[in-house]
Amino acid sequence: MAAQPVIKVAALCGSLRKGSWNYGLLSAAMEVCKESINGMEIEYVDISPLPFVNEDLEVNGTYPAAVETFRKKIEEADCFLFASPEYNYSVTGPLKNAIDWASRPPNVWGDKAAAIVSGGGNFGGGRSHYHLRHIGIYIDLHFINKPEFFLNAFESPPKFDDEGVLTDEESKQRLREVLLALQAFSLRLKGKLSE
Amino acid sequence: MAAQPVIKVAALCGSLRKGSWNYGLLSAAMEVCKESINGMEIEYVDISPLPFVNEDLEVNGTYPAAVETFRKKIEEADCFLFASPEYNYSVTGPLKNAIDWASRPPNVWGDKAAAIVSGGGNFGGGRSHYHLRHIGIYIDLHFINKPEFFLNAFESPPKFDDEGVLTDEESKQRLREVLLALQAFSLRLKGKLSE
Amino acid sequence: MAAQPVIKVAALCGSLRKGSWNYGLLSAAMEVCKESINGMEIEYVDISPLPFVNEDLEVNGTYPAAVETFRKKIEEADCFLFASPEYNYSVTGPLKNAIDWASRPPNVWGDKAAAIVSGGGNFGGGRSHYHLRHIGIYIDLHFINKPEFFLNAFESPPKFDDEGVLTDEESKQRLREVLLALQAFSLRLKGKLSE
Amino acid sequence: MAAQPVIKVAALCGSLRKGSWNYGLLSAAMEVCKESINGMEIEYVDISPLPFVNEDLEVNGTYPAAVETFRKKIEEADCFLFASPEYNYSVTGPLKNAIDWASRPPNVWGDKAAAIVSGGGNFGGGRSHYHLRHIGIYIDLHFINKPEFFLNAFESPPKFDDEGVLTDEESKQRLREVLLALQAFSLRLKGKLSE
Repeated sequence: MAAQPVIKVAALCGSLRKGSWNYGLLSAAMEVCKESINGMEIEYVDISPLPFVNEDLEVNGTYPAAVETFRKKIEEADCFLFASPEYNYSVTGPLKNAIDWASRPPNVWGDKAAAIVSGGGNFGGGRSHYHLRHIGIYIDLHFINKPEFFLNAFESPPKFDDEGVLTDEESKQRLREVLLALQAFSLRLKGKLSE
Repeated sequence: MAAQPVIKVAALCGSLRKGSWNYGLLSAAMEVCKESINGMEIEYVDISPLPFVNEDLEVNGTYPAAVETFRKKIEEADCFLFASPEYNYSVTGPLKNAIDWASRPPNVWGDKAAAIVSGGGNFGGGRSHYHLRHIGIYIDLHFINKPEFFLNAFESPPKFDDEGVLTDEESKQRLREVLLALQAFSLRLKGKLSE
Repeated sequence: MAAQPVIKVAALCGSLRKGSWNYGLLSAAMEVCKESINGMEIEYVDISPLPFVNEDLEVNGTYPAAVETFRKKIEEADCFLFASPEYNYSVTGPLKNAIDWASRPPNVWGDKAAAIVSGGGNFGGGRSHYHLRHIGIYIDLHFINKPEFFLNAFESPPKFDDEGVLTDEESKQRLREVLLALQAFSLRLKGKLSE
Repeated sequence: MAAQPVIKVAALCGSLRKGSWNYGLLSAAMEVCKESINGMEIEYVDISPLPFVNEDLEVNGTYPAAVETFRKKIEEADCFLFASPEYNYSVTGPLKNAIDWASRPPNVWGDKAAAIVSGGGNFGGGRSHYHLRHIGIYIDLHFINKPEFFLNAFESPPKFDDEGVLTDEESKQRLREVLLALQAFSLRLKGKLSE
């Protein structure tokens, strides 16, 4: 009886701020994964060292060193977890920039599963999801449809502590459901259905 | 009889590449404006010196020097002309990043008119327009609806020369129409209708 | 001293259900307008009698009688108030159908101001707004950017009574602000600024 | 050696007009499928008999007869092919209406593959795709990302004859590629990979 393969998740955060709630969501997801999900590993991939996308930086078919490092992480991942805060009703500039670098030829996102989580006021970051999903069409990502994860972080009770650590148990449980759906969809796309 | 006020346009380009077609569109628009439109001045505003958006860079209510300079240009403008290439079905990272910096409190985009032009393959950059317009809701821009300007730069005859200079006369004429519509809408929003 | 012109608003509702919350919002807006806004009149325009859009129904350049009646109401209005519930993350079929009929040549929506309100669960109908705004680009509507009105009708305290009548005073106040913004933007676009 | 299962496709057209180009695309797809694709059957499902969505028509948990018939077709299908013309930058009212009926509880679209084709001027109907994909998030469709099919029907040579029959061979070949991608993705989602 073959063991289920380990699904490798690359986790990206659209906010560069220390103590960001959205990073807090990724951090909690990593903890939840380690504690209670078999066959899944999440690695955080930092997007802050990347330069702005600019084809003039592509010399003789090579990318700047930070870009090559980033692209390798994306290529090696089986699927993606985006923590995507909503800045002005869309994804952040740094996140879009990272996405664009990894889409340069050859596109290293292609044909993999993805999920999005976000925290914020109002719609809990929700509007950024729909731009990210739209971007995903061209880079050929397959997003899970359910569950969607938006966290209105201003509603009481508090969801994060002062360092941006997620403390809300219900949110952790919902994160776990996102991870399980991402794992299942990733296995399904790979033709390795959990029995 | 009062003279019509001069409308000041800030022009931003989503591509940082030298010889970019989208910069070529702005460059042509500036030339067309100078040659044949009264009461309108376009200034190109470079977005490449900006750091990535990060609230940790905001210290004691001030922004980094490059950000302050940029924000001042946006604040002084009456309206905006975006050259917005389509990267993975959306706006570019550097452009989103610039937009987000100028939206930090106080938002300096607010309640002004804007127009978008783009060149590219396929839909001529068109998908980026709709994300940009959506972003504009929150930062409170009023985009002209017509004419929209998409240029499929791969269709013959050639539209740009090897240095990215727009050579196609019909496209220049269409740029002129965009500028006139932007000027008229800006005056209208200011309560200064051309008679 | 010239009197300020009366702004005529056509109000459309995306839901055909009796007792619809979204109709309840329009009904409350009409009451608020009558009670406390000078220079503005709202008329409800029923979209339910329209047939499905189909060019085969356009004979010798005329539209079916129900369509002609509807188009006349749209043409006579100065601006529009949409109550747009979110059905499957977009506008409803009947509302889209009505919009499309009034866009047939000559487009009778063109160059007028508009505002959107909605009630529902989750984002309070919010996702429908963005599709409606996108549709508005082509039919040449100018939506107010602020305030946006989304009402999460499931949050306590209750917002509507059992007949779908809006009872929440805060929501009525927010509706009033939407109407005032719509009036002001409509006057501004007409070149008749309130002093 | 197990035979590959037959994938049943329900084909829906957003235009109700006789001689519609978009219906012409479905018609050509059905012919292409019959002639050259094994293991796939396409059935055209007419959306014109449906009433407007209205919960008041749902009595004692049943839907109107035309709705029940339609919902059964959707439920029995393995995946979907939408011919989605662009009306005012979005999907048509009748198509949205049909989608909404089949999403009423229980949602009968859920967790199936889908593809979109369209013909038109300009972007070849392309803008409607992105609204349809967005709608698909909530009803839980999994759209193929590639190839996308937009047909600018005004470019020469002519693509359709006077009755709306697709005559362009290259377009037929592209339709075939869409169908093969839809078949493969549908099998993959079902855990029945073609070897």
